[in-house]
Amino acid sequence: MSMTADNPVRNGVDTATLFATLDAVKGNNEIAKFQFRASNKWVSGTHSRSTISGFYGAMQEMEHKNVHVVDADHPAVLVGDDNGPTPVEYVLHALAACLTAGIANIAAARNIQLSEVESTVEGNIDLLGILGIGSGVRNGFEQIKVSFKLKGDDPEKLRQVVQQSAARSAVYDIVTNGVPVVIDVEAG
Amino acid sequence: MSMTADNPVRNGVDTATLFATLDAVKGNNEIAKFQFRASNKWVSGTHSRSTISGFYGAMQEMEHKNVHVVDADHPAVLVGDDNGPTPVEYVLHALAACLTAGIANIAAARNIQLSEVESTVEGNIDLLGILGIGSGVRNGFEQIKVSFKLKGDDPEKLRQVVQQSAARSAVYDIVTNGVPVVIDVEAG
Repeated sequence: MSMTADNPVRNGVDTATLFATLDAVKGNNEIAKFQFRASNKWVSGTHSRSTISGFYGAMQEMEHKNVHVVDADHPAVLVGDDNGPTPVEYVLHALAACLTAGIANIAAARNIQLSEVESTVEGNIDLLGILGIGSGVRNGFEQIKVSFKLKGDDPEKLRQVVQQSAARSAVYDIVTNGVPVVIDVEAG
Repeated sequence: MSMTADNPVRNGVDTATLFATLDAVKGNNEIAKFQFRASNKWVSGTHSRSTISGFYGAMQEMEHKNVHVVDADHPAVLVGDDNGPTPVEYVLHALAACLTAGIANIAAARNIQLSEVESTVEGNIDLLGILGIGSGVRNGFEQIKVSFKLKGDDPEKLRQVVQQSAARSAVYDIVTNGVPVVIDVEAG
């Protein structure tokens, strides 16, 4: 990692590279168009496995350093074998991870010291929705609560960093505002 | 697993337990109120780790069979160390896994044979949003496309199963319709 006096590595964030990336994107907006992917394969019952490897970005096909493999399942109480977190728990994880990465980046860019970031994400869901029993009960979470604990710099500065992270978080936007989803089926 | 002639294990789904669960919930709606959780801890830079263990459901505190630990990070091109999938890729995985679990359950309940379910989920995102460069560019995915390949029973029946799964999927609802998110910060 490169380091300069003005743009050092802070909080594990290489701010020189971060600012260079920003400059590169400002010079050519095409660099910012990304497509992320997951390939999922049903194993048995409610158990499935996703492989996450290739993505498109910075005007080229790219690959993760390693192929990431993640399992999802239902716990026994929801008639599964509990071979992995439930799909909805992955959404909570994604939200925490996105906000936390943003906190680290924004704190580093603002020269704010960060020593600890922990969060608990809770999502309330009434399964009457997915079970098709309750009328007017939605299928997904009714509400999500994220509780952060941060240590490092001045508390007010840290609170502003969290606020800015939410204002620039991809997953926060997806989860709060929704995304159009198209489903294509090839059956035979 | 219990098996009866009418409600056998199909596609790895214990339909007897599935129908018994439905009956139990119809008898007492309180059973269906769940709270799922993820606890996340920042590691360094854009790398964080979630622990998924306890949840509330069926009127009691419960725990997964094993504690599930999942890492998230950014790839090098997004100034990370690539120690795990990106948060947005976890959303794609969650969507595929939720729809696929639903497909297996619904096919089993309808006595529809299922031998293979594969899907690729693609999410397009313009990073001008999260980088704060483009005005009017959202932070999250602009669109998500899910492409399923199913094998087993009659193609038309399989297509109807996918349609019903989307109509009863928690993550599909979360991702397409959005959820209110509350963020609480304790800093010091």
